[in-house]
This record gives sequence, C-alpha cells and structure tokens, in this order.
Amino acid sequence: MASLIEPRVLKGFRDSLPAAEIKRRGLAGRVETVFQSFGFVPIDTPALEYAEILLGKGGGETEKQVYRFNDNGGRDVALRFDLTVPFARFVAEHRAELPFPFKRYHIAKVWRGENTQRGRYREFTQCDFDCIGSGNAAADFEILLMMKEALAAAGTPAFTIRLNHRGLFNRFLQRIDSAGKSAEILRAVDKLPKIGRDQVLNLLSAALDEKRAELIVKYVETTGNWDETLNAMTEAAGGDNPDSARLRTLRGFMLDTGIAGAFVIDPAITRGLDYYTGIVFETLLDGMPSIGSVCSGGRYDNLCGLYSKEPLGGVGSSIGLDRLLAAIESGEKAGRETYAELAVICLREEQGGVYQSIAQKFRVSGIPAEVFVEAKKQGTQFAEAERKGIRWALIPPEAGADTGLVTLRDLQTRKNSAPLTVSAAIAFLKQNEKGTRASD
Amino acid sequence: MASLIEPRVLKGFRDSLPAAEIKRRGLAGRVETVFQSFGFVPIDTPALEYAEILLGKGGGETEKQVYRFNDNGGRDVALRFDLTVPFARFVAEHRAELPFPFKRYHIAKVWRGENTQRGRYREFTQCDFDCIGSGNAAADFEILLMMKEALAAAGTPAFTIRLNHRGLFNRFLQRIDSAGKSAEILRAVDKLPKIGRDQVLNLLSAALDEKRAELIVKYVETTGNWDETLNAMTEAAGGDNPDSARLRTLRGFMLDTGIAGAFVIDPAITRGLDYYTGIVFETLLDGMPSIGSVCSGGRYDNLCGLYSKEPLGGVGSSIGLDRLLAAIESGEKAGRETYAELAVICLREEQGGVYQSIAQKFRVSGIPAEVFVEAKKQGTQFAEAERKGIRWALIPPEAGADTGLVTLRDLQTRKNSAPLTVSAAIAFLKQNEKGTRASD
Repeated sequence: MASLIEPRVLKGFRDSLPAAEIKRRGLAGRVETVFQSFGFVPIDTPALEYAEILLGKGGGETEKQVYRFNDNGGRDVALRFDLTVPFARFVAEHRAELPFPFKRYHIAKVWRGENTQRGRYREFTQCDFDCIGSGNAAADFEILLMMKEALAAAGTPAFTIRLNHRGLFNRFLQRIDSAGKSAEILRAVDKLPKIGRDQVLNLLSAALDEKRAELIVKYVETTGNWDETLNAMTEAAGGDNPDSARLRTLRGFMLDTGIAGAFVIDPAITRGLDYYTGIVFETLLDGMPSIGSVCSGGRYDNLCGLYSKEPLGGVGSSIGLDRLLAAIESGEKAGRETYAELAVICLREEQGGVYQSIAQKFRVSGIPAEVFVEAKKQGTQFAEAERKGIRWALIPPEAGADTGLVTLRDLQTRKNSAPLTVSAAIAFLKQNEKGTRASD
Repeated sequence: MASLIEPRVLKGFRDSLPAAEIKRRGLAGRVETVFQSFGFVPIDTPALEYAEILLGKGGGETEKQVYRFNDNGGRDVALRFDLTVPFARFVAEHRAELPFPFKRYHIAKVWRGENTQRGRYREFTQCDFDCIGSGNAAADFEILLMMKEALAAAGTPAFTIRLNHRGLFNRFLQRIDSAGKSAEILRAVDKLPKIGRDQVLNLLSAALDEKRAELIVKYVETTGNWDETLNAMTEAAGGDNPDSARLRTLRGFMLDTGIAGAFVIDPAITRGLDYYTGIVFETLLDGMPSIGSVCSGGRYDNLCGLYSKEPLGGVGSSIGLDRLLAAIESGEKAGRETYAELAVICLREEQGGVYQSIAQKFRVSGIPAEVFVEAKKQGTQFAEAERKGIRWALIPPEAGADTGLVTLRDLQTRKNSAPLTVSAAIAFLKQNEKGTRASD
C-alpha cells in the first residue's frame, strides 16, 4: 500500500466548514440584495489572466505578492489579486457592448501571497461595486449610500464612513509647493493610524522639510464638525474650489436622505493608491478600529489607461467580506449548522421512498427537511438532529400503518405532538414559524 | 506615454457579461435552494492546494491538464481541477468535527488546461452534492431524487437519468473471466456513445478476445423496460446478488415517490473513473444528447484512501453548471439585463439626494430601483431604461414643487400615469407585479 499523504491546506489558506459557510453565504446574499436593489448588475471575470494584463509593464510591490507562473502552453499568467484591474480590462474589452454609466458589482475570490503573520489570508473574497462613465456628484453619492445600506443590511456593528477628497488635498500640496512629492506624501499620511504622528513627521521631513511636514500633519489633523473641518481644509487649499463644492453637495445629499450621521469628513484619509483623483473613503467600526477598514474606495478618472487611450472615469467601493465576517462573528454566538428545520426519522430502511415522499411535501412548502438515512435508535437520531440545530423531528408512520399519521417532536421541549396528517404538520410548522418571527 | 496593452482574456477563459451572469446566478440559486431544502450544508475549500494533495503520488492523464506551479515560497501547488479531491482532503482533515452521515454541497470554480477545440472551457463551475458515511439505499436514493429535483428547478429541458451499478458489471466480468482487465474494459465501454459499437469491439478484442468482447457489448446493449433489463443483467451476472437487489430497492423507492419516469436502467453507463463501486449514473437531455451528461456521479467506497487508512464510503453527484446553462440558453430568448424594475429619471443633477430618497422607498418595499445620475434629455433616459429591460420610469417632482407628486411611465405602452404620491406609486407597482405573476 502506498504511504499516506497528510491532509492539510497551504499556509494562509483555509477551509470553510458548514457553520462558517452558512454565515458567509448569508452575509454575501444580504449585501448582494442591496446591490441589486440599486439596479447594479453582476459580472464575472476569469480568476487567471495574462500577467501583463494584471501587472502592467511595471511590477514593484504588487508583483511580489502575486501568484504568477507559466501555464502548460508557456503563457505568462497570474491569479487576480483584486477585482479592479480585471474590471478595467473588462471595460476596455467590452466597451462597445456596455451601457454607460455602467453600474456593476462583482463578488469573487482574489489571491495574494502576503505575509500571513498579521492574521491575513492569501485567499479572500471582495465585493466590489462601481459606477463608471459619469463624473457627477449623484454617482459619488450613490456609492456612499450603497455602502451605508449594504453594511447595515450585513448586520455590521456601529460604523463610521470617513470621507475625504484627493483633489482638495492636492490643491493644498500645490499651495505649499509639495505637489511634486505627492506619491510619497500620500503613502506617508496613509500610515498615520499604524505608525503614529511622530513617525509620519519623520517620513515627511525626510521627503520635504520640517516646516512643510508640520503643515501637512496639521492639515490632516484638522478636526471639528463637518462644516468647520471643510472650511478649514478649503482655506488651507487656497479658498473656494470645485472639490470643496463637491463635498458640500454630497453633504447636502446626505442631509436630504437622512444618512448624514453615518459620515464624517476626515482629511487624513488618502488611500495610498495612486489612481484616485476625487473623493476617497474608508469605513471603520466604532468599537473595533483595529480591524481596519471594512469598506473603502473612491473616484478615479482613468480606469482603463493601460488598455485604452479614451479616458473613462468612475467611482467605486469594495467591501472586504472576510474582515466584515470577523467583525460580526466577534459579536455573535455560533450560528446554525444547517438549513434544515425538520429531520425525518428513519424507522425502517426499506421505507426510504415513503420518507422522502413525506419530506418532499415539507420542502415544496418552503420547509427544508433532512431525511435520516440510517435506522439508528430514535434517541440517537433525536440527538443528532439537535446537535445540528434542527428544531423539529418527524416520526413517520409505522410500516404498514394505514392512517399515514405522523408525530412531530419539538427537540427543544422534548414533547411529541398528537398524531397528525402531513398537511396538518406542515400547517403547524408554518404557524409556528410565523409566531417565532413575530416575537423576534 | 507607455504603449497600450491589448485587453484580452486567456484562451479557454471568458468573461460573463451582465445578462449571462444574471442567468448564471439565477440558475445556481435555484439549484442551491433545492440542496438546502434537503438539509445539505455548504462548505468551501481553497482554490489552490499542495499539488501532492490534488494529484496523489501518481500523475498521468490528469496531471497534463492541471495548472501546477511553484509559489513564491517554493511550494509545489496546483489549482483544483474538480471538487471531489479537495472534498476527500477536507473530510480526512476535519473528520472529528463533522457529523456523519455528512451531507454537503459545494458550488465553485475548477480549472483544467484542456484542449479547447471542442468548445470546452478551462474555467468552469461545478455543483457537487455528496452524502458520505452511509452505505444505505436511502442515501443512494436521496442523491437521485435531488438530481431530479435540482434539474427540474433549474428549468432543464426534458431529461433522463441513466442508472447502472458498477458492482453488477464487475460480477458479470468475473463470470466471463475478464475482471482482471476491468479498468481497460470500463474505459472502452465508456467511449461507446463517442466512438460507436465497432470501435469498442476492436478495443475490447485487443484487450481480451473476440468472444468475450462480443459478450461484453451484448451485455451493455441489453434493452427493454426496467424489470426486463435488470433481469437480463442479473442472469448474465450469475443470478440474484446484493447489487441487483439494490437496484430493485431503488426502483421501489422511485415508484413510492412517483419519480420513476425520470430514470432508466442502462448497462452501458460505467463512468470511466476507477473509484466508483456501486451505483453510477449520467443525465442526458432528451432533445440534445450531443451536449453530453449534465449531471453524473455514483457511489464510491473509499473517498479518503490517499489520506487516511479508515475507509469512508459515500454517494454523490455533480451538476455541470456551464453545460446546463448552454442547454437552457439554446431553448430560450435573451434574458434580462438588470434586476431593476424602475428607473428614476434625473431632471436636475443637484436634486440627487431627493431622487435617492424616493428610490429608497421603492427599494425597501422590494422594488429594485436604479437612479439615473445624469440629466440627459428625458427621451434619452427613457430609451436607456428600455434598452436595459426596465419596465417603469419614474419622473420625479420638479425642484421646488411642494406636492412631491411623481409620474410613472410605462415604457412598454409609453403612457404616463396621473401624478401620484410615492406611496401610491409603490402600491401600483406591487399590484401590477401581482397581476403579472397571476397571469403568467
């Protein structure tokens, strides 16, 4: 006999067991329902693409994290590391077939060979939603409203969406003659929550000088209510300008829709990535800031620059499903282990067809029913159902019994019903379900 | 400026555009609802695994098709090429945490670097469902019933599930002293629909002799109704035996549940794969046999043999979602391009907050509503909504209007409603939707 292989997953990867997967699918489903309610449409793209498509001509930081290899046909290929780059390729390739503004969502796995020390995983799910082909405030606002609605529908604990405008920050940098170093400045400011004020000052002083470093830190530390903060930022940027006006318009829209309480203006939000040009935002959980942003994004003005000469701008956001799941889990009891609400007990194995016939009547009435396939002792079967979190057991008729009457057992109270017809049992469970929902 | 990169996908891969993706997600959702209604639970496993886990010590046919490479840490890894091997690894690894019999489903992408000439793709979705840890006929039957229910729920055109028993075939081979060549014989018989009777005879004659080749072809060509066929097969296998009895029990269960019409017994079904030991089955579309099997599987008695010394048997099936989608598409008109049922027309861009407030009322009432974000001409916006397949347009109040009344436009009849409150508009659409459903 050949020697055994140790069953194990790769470092940074993990299985999803039933209870976790039920929770994950529920969460993704609730988020997706919100996306659909806004008329956003789903797309899908291949997990594997030409490396050149995903990485551009360059390489750098990203490249080290990417799963890249030569396929059997000698092509230089890679697994996608986000959903934005494949989306840019998708839009450039299908531009003639898409209606603009094009509003799409994409929920899918991505892969990064990251350092796994900080509890990061190498395979995770992103939920991206973008509206491209419109530069309007209404498009920005729709993404912000969707974030708020999707996070609320997901059952996210108290959260705040922190909003800023990259253009306004650039105006400020221009005013203090530092625009030439904006990439380094953005990267430094982005690290503020992680490395703290002094370290950021050091980084900035090295790139510029101490005085301008102080000005930048002062700018990103501006506080106050929305109007005070925006006024101070506007002044620092040299007075009224279209970017400040955009933030004012968005604030007006928030007040119109009654969602202003979920948003703050925060000049320290920059999103390190170079491609943002308009609003940028992150979402922190009020009680768990250390978990990081669970939903981030912004406006960009040239999505497809690598593939097309016609610029195409848009605005979009991405929910990190795994991070959000972790946040929700930390506040919750263990979830259900099954979808089944009823277990049909097996008395005699040769009655398997009869048991499935009974179960089918429950299933088509919207009550998921698991049929037990082995005639173990009744008590053992009750215990197995209970362990799975199934509330009800159905004891089928004895073989040969003419009546066809069944018994329902409530596994919480351990009480049996009087003998019932199957229709009466279905009606009883439907009634009970309604009662449970009403008392929630 | 850097030169442009041509936006394209790898050969054998493809994007899913909104209309196709809406159809795909709808199909997967309907299949999944059936799985859940049987109390099957979802799991997920990594796309990437140790190559040794996926390929065993061997290699051979499979290896040539697999995306295999060394990751940045020098590990020998591969993309999963099916969901069965990762499931075997999963069960071996988590055996102590799982309830047995364990009934799971897994809907996920798999990758194979296959020859793409025959319209095959290198990335496709499988929907697997298995029950492991029980050898009972009830477990076999549940999988067969689920196949039938899931395919029906998916809207599959007329289909027949062809059932056989690998053990019965082995008994017959033993009886004609050919059991030693069973792997070659299975592979040859499996090719019958593709290469035809004569070629199979040639293959078998080469492996055995002409007389036994004739006997085997005669066996797999046995026809008649269920009882006649099973009786002939049983006789050829040397008389009554437990495998024939299993098929008889399953037939009884089918009659009990009223689903016998969807199944035939077919001695030519062998499923080339070595690991099947009990029932095996394939599903062909009555009107499109050339599309191949859309749902296949069988019983195996040692799922985890590579990783564990304790044998664990089960029975399972796999729906090829892409193949099924192709079958359903070929009989259908183009589907919807969006989930939105209502388009909120943009009259003035600065009213974006008001428009979203109106749309939110529809969304929370279960009517997906897309807000148009650019104040193009009304006629243009109507045309855009119509092109997306949205039936209703909402013309919002003029800015500054006190009444807050809106107008609904039916984009099919091109008629406008009288001015309505938003609540009245919601009630009207709800009523209309009910009417539409009732008249379907």
